[in-house]
Amino acid sequence: MALSIEEINKLKVAPVEGLMPALAHRWSPRAFSEAPVSANDLKLILEAAQWAASSGNSQPWRYFVGVKGSETYTKIHGLLVDSNKIWATKPHVLILGVTAAKGGKGNPNPFALYDLGQSVVSLILQATALGLATHSMGGFDREGAKSVFNLGEEYLVGAVIAVGHQAEPSSLPNETLQERELATRQRKPLSEIALEALDKPLAL
Amino acid sequence: MALSIEEINKLKVAPVEGLMPALAHRWSPRAFSEAPVSANDLKLILEAAQWAASSGNSQPWRYFVGVKGSETYTKIHGLLVDSNKIWATKPHVLILGVTAAKGGKGNPNPFALYDLGQSVVSLILQATALGLATHSMGGFDREGAKSVFNLGEEYLVGAVIAVGHQAEPSSLPNETLQERELATRQRKPLSEIALEALDKPLAL
Repeated sequence: MALSIEEINKLKVAPVEGLMPALAHRWSPRAFSEAPVSANDLKLILEAAQWAASSGNSQPWRYFVGVKGSETYTKIHGLLVDSNKIWATKPHVLILGVTAAKGGKGNPNPFALYDLGQSVVSLILQATALGLATHSMGGFDREGAKSVFNLGEEYLVGAVIAVGHQAEPSSLPNETLQERELATRQRKPLSEIALEALDKPLAL
Repeated sequence: MALSIEEINKLKVAPVEGLMPALAHRWSPRAFSEAPVSANDLKLILEAAQWAASSGNSQPWRYFVGVKGSETYTKIHGLLVDSNKIWATKPHVLILGVTAAKGGKGNPNPFALYDLGQSVVSLILQATALGLATHSMGGFDREGAKSVFNLGEEYLVGAVIAVGHQAEPSSLPNETLQERELATRQRKPLSEIALEALDKPLAL
């Protein structure tokens, strides 16, 4: 029996009491409708990314923002691997996040990708708070991205983020994708990630 | 005339209408009191980090969590550069975030630091929502961190995050630090970070 979007989203809530709503409710559906993201919402999620923290306030992030119908959208969609291409035709916005590889003095910035990740999450959580759905993808042609967007060695490629409105799983083009939509979210136990030392979990 | 914590925090709010509260109010003070972070809050911010998104759900992040008085705290504090050491004696918790450099098949994971950044922001925003203050630091001995925590090539070092309770700027040990506490937050304009192509800002 088909579950509604609301029923699915209930199953996907992170099972952590007290977690802030945007963190608890964020997950990465593949079923998107073609409904547009409003200009206001698009600006606001980019402002969320803009105000993220970065090492020495270097703000190394740069976003190529493709709104459906634009050349930028077509370019980003064309970079995706087939398993992403198949569902990522629907979301209204596709964003490619890249980051400046070097700092002000020309030295490699060890925080370039780390800070991009910080900024992307701010964007994603703001989108979640606005009732939008997002799905980050690592599955795309990273070398192709450099070529298509004329990125020299001064940039490192991060991820592609789809932003739009969630749809019923039945809108997905095949059963495998439909079933993945219902999979339970899994995480490593805290004892594996919160440590006093490599061989000693933090007592919580 | 000295400003209260509330007055300072009002000055620091990101000037973006509609931004979710945790994003708008997050900033990085240096003035911390020694007030403890409750065990519940500490667990909750680590759970926020736990439930972040990662490429292929690899969850590469690992956190060394130092609570004041512990050996882990002393180790992390000892790694900080002097300009951080001087104020970071106060916050109740110091966390070192590191990330698994390789994926399941032993290949380098290009998202290792990116995903750590995603997880750290989740931790920071949850802390902000709980009324805690945080300050991320890149200024520490990164090679020393590998040595002190016995990290081989399988880990990359990220950042140190101080977590605690905010205090009055006057509690800081010198005027330079006190003045920095009042500096206006600055960001690049959206036209530099939201693009259609390298030479073409997104029309917003």
